[in-house]
Amino acid sequence: MERVTPPEHAEVTDKRLLRGARTRKAVLRQAVDVASLEGLGSISFGHLALATGLSKAGIQTLFKTKESLQVATVAFARELFVDAVIRPAGSAPHGVTRLRALLDHWIVYAETPLFPGGCFRAANLAEFDSHPGPVRDALLHDQREWREVIAAELRCALEAGEIAGLDVELTAFQIDALLCAANTDLRFGDADAAGKARRIIEGLLVAPPR
Amino acid sequence: MERVTPPEHAEVTDKRLLRGARTRKAVLRQAVDVASLEGLGSISFGHLALATGLSKAGIQTLFKTKESLQVATVAFARELFVDAVIRPAGSAPHGVTRLRALLDHWIVYAETPLFPGGCFRAANLAEFDSHPGPVRDALLHDQREWREVIAAELRCALEAGEIAGLDVELTAFQIDALLCAANTDLRFGDADAAGKARRIIEGLLVAPPR
Repeated sequence: MERVTPPEHAEVTDKRLLRGARTRKAVLRQAVDVASLEGLGSISFGHLALATGLSKAGIQTLFKTKESLQVATVAFARELFVDAVIRPAGSAPHGVTRLRALLDHWIVYAETPLFPGGCFRAANLAEFDSHPGPVRDALLHDQREWREVIAAELRCALEAGEIAGLDVELTAFQIDALLCAANTDLRFGDADAAGKARRIIEGLLVAPPR
Repeated sequence: MERVTPPEHAEVTDKRLLRGARTRKAVLRQAVDVASLEGLGSISFGHLALATGLSKAGIQTLFKTKESLQVATVAFARELFVDAVIRPAGSAPHGVTRLRALLDHWIVYAETPLFPGGCFRAANLAEFDSHPGPVRDALLHDQREWREVIAAELRCALEAGEIAGLDVELTAFQIDALLCAANTDLRFGDADAAGKARRIIEGLLVAPPR
């Protein structure tokens, strides 16, 4: 015979799950902010407990190890990035139009930062690039995914004859490089940094000769 | 009457200065390695004492504060960069030839790293870009100086008619962005990263139409 959870128990479990999910979100939101400013290496259960007012033991129960907290932080930052940059561009038609929409949203994301330290990926790639492990893998995966989003639109633009022949992988690498550099320059107070990256990228998206 | 230091005293002082300079260099060499891997935020008097076998008190006497140790580390890394990349290119004639020599030396610097974590500036700019203060200023100064080295050669190349008309500041920003991105990709194990940056940069250095 199947064991059925009595309704009052189900409700308790639901509430617990909900509270767990809320706690998780509050901790990760704080962790993303700290990591964008100080780097993922700087997040700790103790500091997050202080910053969120939650118990250190409770946070530890949720995330187990510092490494799994760091990996969860990368995944949470990725979701915020998708919501801020990739999803809103999704209504634009594929190709150059979608690519420009992605750039527009990226510039808003970097100029009025979602995270106090600016681009989360840029802030943490340099810290973890020499440290093999799951955190580095997660950051690398995000970066490759973002370049692939750019590459896919370049391919569409090429196929539709919107842009002149170019090496798609090389150009995606180049666009990502320019955006990372613009993010750093923005943090250093260069208000025109995103504009510079934008002008160079526009120069890559030239229409083919008729 | 002028006070003259007796010869034996002078010798003691010389030896002390020499020892101080040697200690300083040993500490800074270690600090640069740690900072290229873990970031400048991770260097500490205690760890440097352990790593060099020198006394923590002796290191503290030399550098006073952690911040001044960080600034001295940036200056030391800059000297190593000048020796590895800028000085050896100095024998090439100004313009495109010098620019290519700088790129060749930069690629050796990034591929067979002078520092275990690869490009020192790239590793630390992202960490300090949101933290105003003397360390950030020193890193920013180095970055601007490097871009100006590139810009100066681009100007020479333009004046000599070696390359077609381009925006010098924008192109220097672009070249620096590509090298930073190549450095990150190299750390992630992409053996072709420097080659990618190189191919894109060569595409910028096209001869003017005859």
